[in-house]
Amino acid sequence: MSLPILLTVALLLTSSAYASVNDFCVADLQQPDTPSGYPCKKATSLTEKDFVYSGLGVAGNTSNIISAAVTPAFVAQFPAVNGLGISLARLDLAVAGVIPMHTHPGASEVLVVIQGTICAGFISSANTVYFKTLFKGDIMVFPQGLLHFQINSGDDPALAFVSFSSANPGLQILDYALFGNELPTELVTKTTFLDAAVVKKLKSVLGGSG
Amino acid sequence: MSLPILLTVALLLTSSAYASVNDFCVADLQQPDTPSGYPCKKATSLTEKDFVYSGLGVAGNTSNIISAAVTPAFVAQFPAVNGLGISLARLDLAVAGVIPMHTHPGASEVLVVIQGTICAGFISSANTVYFKTLFKGDIMVFPQGLLHFQINSGDDPALAFVSFSSANPGLQILDYALFGNELPTELVTKTTFLDAAVVKKLKSVLGGSG
Amino acid sequence: MSLPILLTVALLLTSSAYASVNDFCVADLQQPDTPSGYPCKKATSLTEKDFVYSGLGVAGNTSNIISAAVTPAFVAQFPAVNGLGISLARLDLAVAGVIPMHTHPGASEVLVVIQGTICAGFISSANTVYFKTLFKGDIMVFPQGLLHFQINSGDDPALAFVSFSSANPGLQILDYALFGNELPTELVTKTTFLDAAVVKKLKSVLGGSG
Amino acid sequence: MSLPILLTVALLLTSSAYASVNDFCVADLQQPDTPSGYPCKKATSLTEKDFVYSGLGVAGNTSNIISAAVTPAFVAQFPAVNGLGISLARLDLAVAGVIPMHTHPGASEVLVVIQGTICAGFISSANTVYFKTLFKGDIMVFPQGLLHFQINSGDDPALAFVSFSSANPGLQILDYALFGNELPTELVTKTTFLDAAVVKKLKSVLGGSG
Amino acid sequence: MSLPILLTVALLLTSSAYASVNDFCVADLQQPDTPSGYPCKKATSLTEKDFVYSGLGVAGNTSNIISAAVTPAFVAQFPAVNGLGISLARLDLAVAGVIPMHTHPGASEVLVVIQGTICAGFISSANTVYFKTLFKGDIMVFPQGLLHFQINSGDDPALAFVSFSSANPGLQILDYALFGNELPTELVTKTTFLDAAVVKKLKSVLGGSG
Amino acid sequence: MSLPILLTVALLLTSSAYASVNDFCVADLQQPDTPSGYPCKKATSLTEKDFVYSGLGVAGNTSNIISAAVTPAFVAQFPAVNGLGISLARLDLAVAGVIPMHTHPGASEVLVVIQGTICAGFISSANTVYFKTLFKGDIMVFPQGLLHFQINSGDDPALAFVSFSSANPGLQILDYALFGNELPTELVTKTTFLDAAVVKKLKSVLGGSG
Repeated sequence: MSLPILLTVALLLTSSAYASVNDFCVADLQQPDTPSGYPCKKATSLTEKDFVYSGLGVAGNTSNIISAAVTPAFVAQFPAVNGLGISLARLDLAVAGVIPMHTHPGASEVLVVIQGTICAGFISSANTVYFKTLFKGDIMVFPQGLLHFQINSGDDPALAFVSFSSANPGLQILDYALFGNELPTELVTKTTFLDAAVVKKLKSVLGGSG
Repeated sequence: MSLPILLTVALLLTSSAYASVNDFCVADLQQPDTPSGYPCKKATSLTEKDFVYSGLGVAGNTSNIISAAVTPAFVAQFPAVNGLGISLARLDLAVAGVIPMHTHPGASEVLVVIQGTICAGFISSANTVYFKTLFKGDIMVFPQGLLHFQINSGDDPALAFVSFSSANPGLQILDYALFGNELPTELVTKTTFLDAAVVKKLKSVLGGSG
Repeated sequence: MSLPILLTVALLLTSSAYASVNDFCVADLQQPDTPSGYPCKKATSLTEKDFVYSGLGVAGNTSNIISAAVTPAFVAQFPAVNGLGISLARLDLAVAGVIPMHTHPGASEVLVVIQGTICAGFISSANTVYFKTLFKGDIMVFPQGLLHFQINSGDDPALAFVSFSSANPGLQILDYALFGNELPTELVTKTTFLDAAVVKKLKSVLGGSG
Repeated sequence: MSLPILLTVALLLTSSAYASVNDFCVADLQQPDTPSGYPCKKATSLTEKDFVYSGLGVAGNTSNIISAAVTPAFVAQFPAVNGLGISLARLDLAVAGVIPMHTHPGASEVLVVIQGTICAGFISSANTVYFKTLFKGDIMVFPQGLLHFQINSGDDPALAFVSFSSANPGLQILDYALFGNELPTELVTKTTFLDAAVVKKLKSVLGGSG
Repeated sequence: MSLPILLTVALLLTSSAYASVNDFCVADLQQPDTPSGYPCKKATSLTEKDFVYSGLGVAGNTSNIISAAVTPAFVAQFPAVNGLGISLARLDLAVAGVIPMHTHPGASEVLVVIQGTICAGFISSANTVYFKTLFKGDIMVFPQGLLHFQINSGDDPALAFVSFSSANPGLQILDYALFGNELPTELVTKTTFLDAAVVKKLKSVLGGSG
Repeated sequence: MSLPILLTVALLLTSSAYASVNDFCVADLQQPDTPSGYPCKKATSLTEKDFVYSGLGVAGNTSNIISAAVTPAFVAQFPAVNGLGISLARLDLAVAGVIPMHTHPGASEVLVVIQGTICAGFISSANTVYFKTLFKGDIMVFPQGLLHFQINSGDDPALAFVSFSSANPGLQILDYALFGNELPTELVTKTTFLDAAVVKKLKSVLGGSG
């Protein structure tokens, strides 16, 4: 093949490619977010390292009140998922560990048990409860925005990975939302039917004021 | 204008129109739902009545434990919103009435106060609390999936209309989700830090078992 | 509970929360828009006031040619709806007031009558007309992009709120689009079958040239 | 390669393929539509003919009031585009032919001139007019839901293809919407500022009543 | 609390819940698919078992030409993910196992290594290659629709879970697409620059004809 | 009509219009892209020229290895399609010209034959091949992300326009992806079953290294 033709081919490729560099959009976290995600880093500045994240390879610290840890690989930790509608997190549950009742306002979740035994469940809008004991290899889905929980129901530490249908699923832990901020006790009692004494006790445990 | 030409025009119109009857899709609730909404009723069977709903014209019954009522015009009540990404509801709050802490798993909400004074608020994923007293004509937004509440903070009954960014926003009232179903007390206590006694008391009030 | 554990809890919360601050994206209107909406203001700069808008609490000025006023709470007026797929507007119709034939290119609409009597309608792609007299509390849906109108058909002023399935629904008022700009009369006549005299007269009323 | 291994390969393929047959969803027009499109025909019943349509190969009949014809390849004519967010149409404009002022409620459009000279334009929500004379090979975009038109501005017949960002873009021709149905003259005059005489004349031309 | 009031509460709950049962849509695979997914099973027929799948708990059979197996939990295997924009699969790679060059036409993918060492990579539209050796706990993203591969690059079997941003991501394995069907050899050679002899040899291995 | 009233009308128009200028978002290519597209140019800086593109009016240079040319009008060339979910390209196929096997990772495609005879086809996820000879005026759909090709199967040059369901559909030409970059020969052979000699030969033709 003669050189001139080869050059033409390269040209065709270059010009076509120029129009389509954005089949991904690695987040530039230094710029403000938008409703669809962060602005993209220049494709020419990216290497394979941008598409790999090692932060889920280390167990989270479970020496805390819930004997559990959630280690996220959302867009803030793993900018490559920006705009792709997917992200991951790692759940470590020590013996008796609990991921307390919580929601992800912007995503559905699928959990896969890697190790141990986990009792997991969610409550639907129709107020039906679905919970089940999951063993190694089992997967369970938690539809978007619904209250759900995971409990280590075995005798050994448990490990799971959870996938989300959003690069930024959000996380609203019920107890922190109710008792871990400055929401006035009076508003908590009025909107939850809990007694002021109960609210104040939990506020003191979870760092809330008011 | 001669008749033949007029007929041609009519034909053009008919054939074009045939391809575009579905700028709406009034739900046929007798068929199974899909992820995008219900199958459509035949356009030819529809009249103006299908696009109008009068169910929000009547105050909800507030003689209940929360002195409040939510009257929805979601797709189940108002099939015309099917697939259009919008729906409405009416909030009636008697004096001291409360719409308890709740979420809409699949929609953001905007509230407009028609009458009275309402203290409304929500808690973000970052655990920040935003609440404010709203007066007649004020509007407030509650982003998708976040815990929020509305309280009549005035001396008279209050009325508000709320709009949702979905034809089927869902509604998960926190207390009913925790205490109004068969979720075992042990799971509630483990996932909320509440005492069993507190849980059992609220279960008895809200109709829960287990 | 000992302090060290409490600190761990706070840490868990902080790091999780950091990844999920964007369950909302209040528009920074000083930056250029994107197809999904405006870039977000920093969450830390927001207060409850950012989520509340009082501009719909005041009646629009109906002393005009249509005896009516549309007061929008779109993203440009109420930045908190940015990216949430919802917005509101207030319609004031004096006696005999008319919101003339118009479309919202990017949103469906639901109207709720707060006061008075309104005759409202739309025309479908299949060229069917749906119109009906609406009374207090009635709601009506206008599917995306279709020509529709609202007329005060009662003896008193009317008030309605309209909700849209977009933060930026757009508004194209037919008469202004045809007669209120520099679209040449010749193009208007050719594309509407209206006589030049009719076009010119309306151009003079509505401020058009050409 | 031994047969057993080949069979295993086939099996792998079959089972994987089974989960992914729906990268397309050719419409079964015999079933009711849904908000996302029609139910799919069984993939096993499809042949290459399902993905090809020849209806745009023939010029539309332009012997009509507008000296023009729109031949759609929307989902109703070409079921293969169902759910794919794209469709086509053919525009034939005889000398002096006009596609009158119209909107597509659910899609943006791009036009490419194949033959002849076309003056095309649209009016934005900000009431700015954009129109230009297009020659062979020129393309022009008409954003979703906005009023637009195409006129043969040359001395020969013109041909164009238009693409839409929806399988079912809809088509609302202004004059038919206003004057070609049973919308009462009184409502037309009130909502358009046109005189009753003008309205009645156009109703008689375009087949409207009322 | 008196019984009448309790009943009212129950009623409020029931009617609200009725409008919001569809925060999930477990697929009824007996009905035809739609562009947004399968019609939903009745919520009342569901139990916790519908939301859990155990099929990924068993290693796939890697005694095949690629020494690897893909075990999907797409909507066809796990109907609960229908409409939720997420699904999973399990990758088993024996020593020297390879998931050959392939694409998922409708989804981005994130892989997490559970065991072993995997060399994985993809090629962008700009024709840049990104590949990297992944160790236990590493995650890597493969943007939608791009050619990618995974190879066991260690001395032991490898296990990974992959998540997709769709309930039905599709799977197009390059070699099967080119050589494992009835695509005529002449068309393969013309469109790939491969010699007919190469094509025929691979067709014989992969079961293709023509 | 008196002047004061006219001014009021203008005011109404201005304020309404202000909230709705973004029914389009012409790309400002000088700013970084986002997952939903580029930031918008100021609407006030736009003219009709921004919505028209003439680059497809000229035949592409087919004096190259494939005797064919793809001339895109994607967002990079035609910024007006930004965010509108549509774009175009022109295909020129000299006699015996071939658009080799390729995918568009982010879009479905519809092709319309303007001139000549084209054999076009695609392979589904279920590994079924669909191909057909297309004549002038025929259209064919290629669902998102699937391998497809176009071959001039006539005796004269062929011309086609292709439309995409995205402003930035991407383009991954199989041979360039495999043989036109630095992907190591060893990885290509392992993931495609091709011999190293075949790979190296094609790498030399297509400019690849490694």
